[in-house]
Amino acid sequence: MTMTSIYWYGNAFLPEEQVRISPHDRGYYFGDGIYEVFRVYGGRLFEADAHYERLRLSAEGLKLPLPWGIDGLRSAIDELVARNGLSDGTVYLQITRGAAPRNHLFPADAAPVALAYTREVARPVRTMEEGISVITQDDIRWLHCNYKTLNLLANVLAKQEAAERGAADAILHRDGIVTESSASNVMIVKDGALLTHPANNLILHGVTRAVTLRLAGAGEIPVQERPFTLDELYGADEAFVTGTTVEITPIVSVDGRPIGAGAPGPLTRELQARFASAIGIA
Amino acid sequence: MTMTSIYWYGNAFLPEEQVRISPHDRGYYFGDGIYEVFRVYGGRLFEADAHYERLRLSAEGLKLPLPWGIDGLRSAIDELVARNGLSDGTVYLQITRGAAPRNHLFPADAAPVALAYTREVARPVRTMEEGISVITQDDIRWLHCNYKTLNLLANVLAKQEAAERGAADAILHRDGIVTESSASNVMIVKDGALLTHPANNLILHGVTRAVTLRLAGAGEIPVQERPFTLDELYGADEAFVTGTTVEITPIVSVDGRPIGAGAPGPLTRELQARFASAIGIA
Repeated sequence: MTMTSIYWYGNAFLPEEQVRISPHDRGYYFGDGIYEVFRVYGGRLFEADAHYERLRLSAEGLKLPLPWGIDGLRSAIDELVARNGLSDGTVYLQITRGAAPRNHLFPADAAPVALAYTREVARPVRTMEEGISVITQDDIRWLHCNYKTLNLLANVLAKQEAAERGAADAILHRDGIVTESSASNVMIVKDGALLTHPANNLILHGVTRAVTLRLAGAGEIPVQERPFTLDELYGADEAFVTGTTVEITPIVSVDGRPIGAGAPGPLTRELQARFASAIGIA
Repeated sequence: MTMTSIYWYGNAFLPEEQVRISPHDRGYYFGDGIYEVFRVYGGRLFEADAHYERLRLSAEGLKLPLPWGIDGLRSAIDELVARNGLSDGTVYLQITRGAAPRNHLFPADAAPVALAYTREVARPVRTMEEGISVITQDDIRWLHCNYKTLNLLANVLAKQEAAERGAADAILHRDGIVTESSASNVMIVKDGALLTHPANNLILHGVTRAVTLRLAGAGEIPVQERPFTLDELYGADEAFVTGTTVEITPIVSVDGRPIGAGAPGPLTRELQARFASAIGIA
């Protein structure tokens, strides 16, 4: 197993056991921070530009300065991947507003704190092949789901509820309009077209979502970015989730009802194949 | 100055500098935790039972076990206050689901982590006397504001926005219905009656809110717990916020418009006086 225990923290490369957070870190008090999960295939960050751009937008949304600049973060992450000899896995990067005496107001003199580490992660081959069963739940999150922040309690509770009910994930909806799942975007296929919620404030603008839409568009598959209902989900010909670690994972049942034939559909398979090509898998 | 540097962390009493959090603490990753701020007057916790009951309800809402039991927490907090010789100030208590490899699902084997410390804090005498000016903002928070959790980004951003616009705080509203402020409850007075948002999932069930309603009720002041609009706020005879550290602080203007005569009103003064009696101030 490749060594993956070097962390980047406090602008230094450290062994994991030396990474200890201040109790006054605003990430700990308020979830006042942002994060990204990058996928590494064959030692290279996949869609790095898109992840850094989303990080920049999240920071802007939270008025969180990034003193390293995106270029500085990029250098640090690249060095971290190299130091850990990571070939296939993920990089977790989290940036908080820093440590300061507890006060909702932004501190005048706190320096943002970055934490990053790598993990070896295999592609979810089995679930990509077989598909997953999901349940639906009310989307009770705040109204800036487009920022990738550390305020993830609603996502945590949704995912846990799904697991307790024997499902792989929870599909969230606001008054019957499907937004996304607890940690990935949702797409459905109806009459040959691909449907997914518009990239507004109600969903995370998934990097894999964008890749998938691009791969679909490149193959003359009609794409509609528009809100769709729970009933449209139940009645879809195919459905799947997209995400950095789940890639394109078919949904085969929702709330116990089979989607399409209750097995991954042909358009899902086609998009999975295109995605595999995009990441350099034969 | 009284020594206040002993923390309670990891079930031990430690000097502050020895308190260091794991980067894998779910409080840091997800804001997966709860907290309370207790007020200490004359060495005694004010309304301790109400705070512990709310903590219990927050834990229940998050399915977060409290292995200490409320009694164990109570003992620890009492000892902390004694060790720090705290006479007048606050106790901050935060409990997270513990440290585990990052995964939205609850960890099977993580032990919840409690952190507590004390601070000397004076009563906000000047703002209680003069009142504060506030602005209004959309309430964009999640739909479990009744749980006192570490997901506080919306509150942080609201408070910061208020400060940047020269106001002391932000009053939040959902589609024109006033909920509460960034970190306190809001009450208005109209035609001699006290109005405040019902204690449902859209607001924190403030301990000082409950105390204030009790003090009003005890004095034959009519109380209505019902939603009220921004227009009712603008047109109120009096308005104030209630909270553990702000106590009862008058609002003298909202969005630049004076409330009532633009000065703290008589019912507000009466409730402040009753509150002072309740905490043992002459």
